[in-house]
Amino acid sequence: MKSIYFDNAATTKVDSRVLEAMLPYLNDEFGNAGSIHSFGQNAQSAVDEARNKIAEFFGARKQEIIFTSGATESNNLAIQGVVNYFVSQKQKIHIITSKIEHPAVLETFAEMKKRGIEVDYVGVDENGVLKIAELKKKIKDNTVLISVMYANNEVGSIQPVKEISELVKEERSKRTKDNLPIYLHTDAVQAVNYLPMNVEYLGVDLMTISGHKIYAPKGIGALYIRGGVKIKPITFGGHQEYGLRAGTNNVPGIVALAKALEIISIEQKKEIQKLKSIKDKLIKELENFENYKFNGIPEKQLPNILNISFLNAEGESILMLLDMDGIAISTGSACSSGSLEPSHVLTAMGRPAEWAHGSVRVSLGRFNNENEVLPFIKSLKIIIDKLRKMAP
Amino acid sequence: MKSIYFDNAATTKVDSRVLEAMLPYLNDEFGNAGSIHSFGQNAQSAVDEARNKIAEFFGARKQEIIFTSGATESNNLAIQGVVNYFVSQKQKIHIITSKIEHPAVLETFAEMKKRGIEVDYVGVDENGVLKIAELKKKIKDNTVLISVMYANNEVGSIQPVKEISELVKEERSKRTKDNLPIYLHTDAVQAVNYLPMNVEYLGVDLMTISGHKIYAPKGIGALYIRGGVKIKPITFGGHQEYGLRAGTNNVPGIVALAKALEIISIEQKKEIQKLKSIKDKLIKELENFENYKFNGIPEKQLPNILNISFLNAEGESILMLLDMDGIAISTGSACSSGSLEPSHVLTAMGRPAEWAHGSVRVSLGRFNNENEVLPFIKSLKIIIDKLRKMAP
Repeated sequence: MKSIYFDNAATTKVDSRVLEAMLPYLNDEFGNAGSIHSFGQNAQSAVDEARNKIAEFFGARKQEIIFTSGATESNNLAIQGVVNYFVSQKQKIHIITSKIEHPAVLETFAEMKKRGIEVDYVGVDENGVLKIAELKKKIKDNTVLISVMYANNEVGSIQPVKEISELVKEERSKRTKDNLPIYLHTDAVQAVNYLPMNVEYLGVDLMTISGHKIYAPKGIGALYIRGGVKIKPITFGGHQEYGLRAGTNNVPGIVALAKALEIISIEQKKEIQKLKSIKDKLIKELENFENYKFNGIPEKQLPNILNISFLNAEGESILMLLDMDGIAISTGSACSSGSLEPSHVLTAMGRPAEWAHGSVRVSLGRFNNENEVLPFIKSLKIIIDKLRKMAP
Repeated sequence: MKSIYFDNAATTKVDSRVLEAMLPYLNDEFGNAGSIHSFGQNAQSAVDEARNKIAEFFGARKQEIIFTSGATESNNLAIQGVVNYFVSQKQKIHIITSKIEHPAVLETFAEMKKRGIEVDYVGVDENGVLKIAELKKKIKDNTVLISVMYANNEVGSIQPVKEISELVKEERSKRTKDNLPIYLHTDAVQAVNYLPMNVEYLGVDLMTISGHKIYAPKGIGALYIRGGVKIKPITFGGHQEYGLRAGTNNVPGIVALAKALEIISIEQKKEIQKLKSIKDKLIKELENFENYKFNGIPEKQLPNILNISFLNAEGESILMLLDMDGIAISTGSACSSGSLEPSHVLTAMGRPAEWAHGSVRVSLGRFNNENEVLPFIKSLKIIIDKLRKMAP
């Protein structure tokens, strides 16, 4: 039986073209980009070329792209880095995020709060979209950072990043040179494959991306940092990455990240069409089910994510039984799996517990195809019926 | 012309057996170790197996091995993590390191000092070995951390880690439960290939290792943290790595690290013999040169490192001219290359500037052989003669 992988929001398979691009740097091109000799310079050239390509993808300048070990580090660098800068300046600051962020943002905000920073959280509507009016009210004179994800990893709801950046610009225009600056950070890991990523268009000041969500390997990510943003490194050592992220460059990972973005820029349109069509088929087939609800509005979400709640069927049980049929989906974030709490995202969307507990996330990707829909639906139907019969 | 890579202390080529071990995890075994389904569990099993093997290598327990993105992050986690714990407890603490550490330790100590932590630096003798009596004098009632590298990356001098741990034990025995604890951290990245690494034998509480110095790829490292050590994470997010290091596991990197250590445990003896014999040949051939000095005592250093100062020949010029002959060496650390300052290690060893400026590091590795010595010596002789003729 061929397995079906519908958990691309958790991680993606490395694209063979990406692997091919990085392999030389796991073989003969092994130099340290910090070395002066040819081995080192070959590595440095590869890093430079990758950085240029990535900067171009985001409409940024090369010195605005900082390579990290992944999204968690990028989010931490963005948040801790900005906070630490102002703390080192003895400023009393305020930061804002949403209630539906990835743990890498939420936990970092929680830590900042423990350290005495004033923190605010903005809610979302029933479709998982940030309440922009609430955000507007929460911005204060000393708000230096707003961090809102570009697209939610659990339900795929797309956040109004451009509208938020308009708010930030409005607030910025009220401040003088003697006031604090205000920055907008977005965790864009789930958006990169599908949404406009130009930083000027979006108006963001910091933006997180991750390799393993875009068919590049685990262990590589990047943070876009707009020139002039006040930020401190969070780890210290060598002078790599313009002094903002010490450590020997992960050359194969960096090359892979650039290749992954290149493929997106070429194939995005076609891929979105394909995924939409698979998703539509899924939605249509689900009409044969009873007592289910989509979390969020499928048509307004990322083309690859569908989050469904089934009444009287526990999400984790659905997942485990599907797994026995060789089908991989998830109940939410892989980073909070194992937790018995209902999803913080569904809770923020106001889903009652009985619906939240029966939620599963189907996340499609580049290597899926329409032929996988019917076997999945068939398994799912049997499982839901079985679980409901067993339910008290 | 075949090139000669004598810069293995900067980075090593990935061993083909390591690449082979990690490749499945860059291909079909791409699951997120945090996912509950089979794709995820296969990844988790690979991580578990690697963690067990690595723990065994160091004589540690599996929950004492924390995977990171490399040595810089490991060193930062060790130092910032311990410091932040006690800062969060409102304790007034003191930390000590040596003057010859890698920038990842020195710069982190500098940052801790900026944040108000009391910091002390211990000197080394003319051979680059820590002055243990000086260290002993500097330990205070509130010293919570001593960080001394196991072997120096520039000159290969081996530090008396075991003696230091005896000092630490002595100090610990004087303290009561109401006093602060005291921990010993060692940056062991250069030692792993050649020296005893059992944490009980060494008596260390924290130990840093890096993948790309031991024929595994860049972007992976680990930190040994003895059970019970008071430490806080430095990045926040998912619950990975026993809550001490958030972020999706770099599965291929982790598998590679375990394989690299397995190879060391099998081949170490033979490899040390081979490298010693190459190094002896180098030393012998250098007898035909004039006005040169070894930095440190070659026989007492790591078997793979030889640091030589040539009078009236600038190190960087030697490096560049050798590079034109296809030979890669370095002037010191790749992490401080580009700097015009004389090496902080040679300065700490009391080398006068005229000798320090003419220093080069030859660092051998697994893929070198004796046949590379004569071509290197021949090029070096011509270059030194040429540079000395040009010297004012």
